[in-house]
Amino acid sequence: MKDKYSVSNLNKFRQLREKGVYDKETVHKVLDAGLVAHVAFVEDGRAVVVPMIYGRHDETVYLHGARKARVIRMLESNDRICINVTLVDGIVLARSAFNSSMNYRSVTVFGTPQLIEAEADKLYAMKVISEHLMPGRWDELRDPLDKEVKMTGVIEVSIDTASAKIATGMPTDEPEDYEIPVWAGVLPLVSRLESLQDDDRLLPDVKASAAVRALQNRTL
Amino acid sequence: MKDKYSVSNLNKFRQLREKGVYDKETVHKVLDAGLVAHVAFVEDGRAVVVPMIYGRHDETVYLHGARKARVIRMLESNDRICINVTLVDGIVLARSAFNSSMNYRSVTVFGTPQLIEAEADKLYAMKVISEHLMPGRWDELRDPLDKEVKMTGVIEVSIDTASAKIATGMPTDEPEDYEIPVWAGVLPLVSRLESLQDDDRLLPDVKASAAVRALQNRTL
Repeated sequence: MKDKYSVSNLNKFRQLREKGVYDKETVHKVLDAGLVAHVAFVEDGRAVVVPMIYGRHDETVYLHGARKARVIRMLESNDRICINVTLVDGIVLARSAFNSSMNYRSVTVFGTPQLIEAEADKLYAMKVISEHLMPGRWDELRDPLDKEVKMTGVIEVSIDTASAKIATGMPTDEPEDYEIPVWAGVLPLVSRLESLQDDDRLLPDVKASAAVRALQNRTL
Repeated sequence: MKDKYSVSNLNKFRQLREKGVYDKETVHKVLDAGLVAHVAFVEDGRAVVVPMIYGRHDETVYLHGARKARVIRMLESNDRICINVTLVDGIVLARSAFNSSMNYRSVTVFGTPQLIEAEADKLYAMKVISEHLMPGRWDELRDPLDKEVKMTGVIEVSIDTASAKIATGMPTDEPEDYEIPVWAGVLPLVSRLESLQDDDRLLPDVKASAAVRALQNRTL
């Protein structure tokens, strides 16, 4: 397996304080850290973007929704879609507005979507998505009911090409701006899963499992 | 001014544990809380989605990038684009995978993009974007240089229609699943701007202003 995505006009980088990379390891790491993917498709000749829960295994991104949802029908009928996952890491306060920016990890995937028909494949994909969001939870829960599987539309997107863009660190100012007596630096943004809130209707003595407790205090 | 967006096939809601709303106040509130917008456009007949910094004033969303960036050229040539801003508020752990989901605030905007040519309009839009990200910072910084304004491409997107989807609270399980002795509840995700990190090249005795310090510990 090649460890880099091919570079074309689709994913070539043009400018950067940021660092653009094509290596699969970095792309996978950002995809695995995110919670929401922004999925873009064409409907009636115009672009639509929808936030979706997702999961990844190897070179496939899985998406799901209600079988009858517009997004599932549209993804079925597009021959190539674009997915972006972005995690914001901070605001970069430079000595000018022009050089102010953000720190972030961002991945863009171009891929071919296909509706999964076979029930076993669908269940596998549903598990990948569930485990992405809530690792260890799938095996704690009852099996999906037949009607639930039928009501779920699952799309597999094979990654045709992808790229990651990572911006970190302090601002880069114009040389002469370093003489301006204005504060500059970074204001980090930290996204953290906080402590568990019990559902009102828990059965007596039911506690969160080790897998669920492990999710607490995790930063993205 | 009407206080609701018109409902059409573009923005009509189909299903929900979530609450879909069309009122402008809610849409504006979510747009004003986010840091990154996902902007989708059509390029060579296919959808592309790009994360962008933005700002809003009234019924206009402003986007910017390098004047020569592909995204600015593409936005210029699309007659309608789609923008989504999503803030994730938590993971909803239900008693089944099927009913597990997320809490979030999400807004989708359909709008008409236009490149801003006049320098005064461009500067105004740049200020709106800067103030969205870093309130109070614009007046602390030196004025943008002519060449900086020239190198910046600014797009104004007038909102044609929009909608918000807000999901909050505890899982909704199947009636019979409440008998299963498995933990259920919510794991909130909190995104917080943390404490300021000084740039290495600050001049002696330069401290962060009150406006900058006010950004600390702000949650999104």
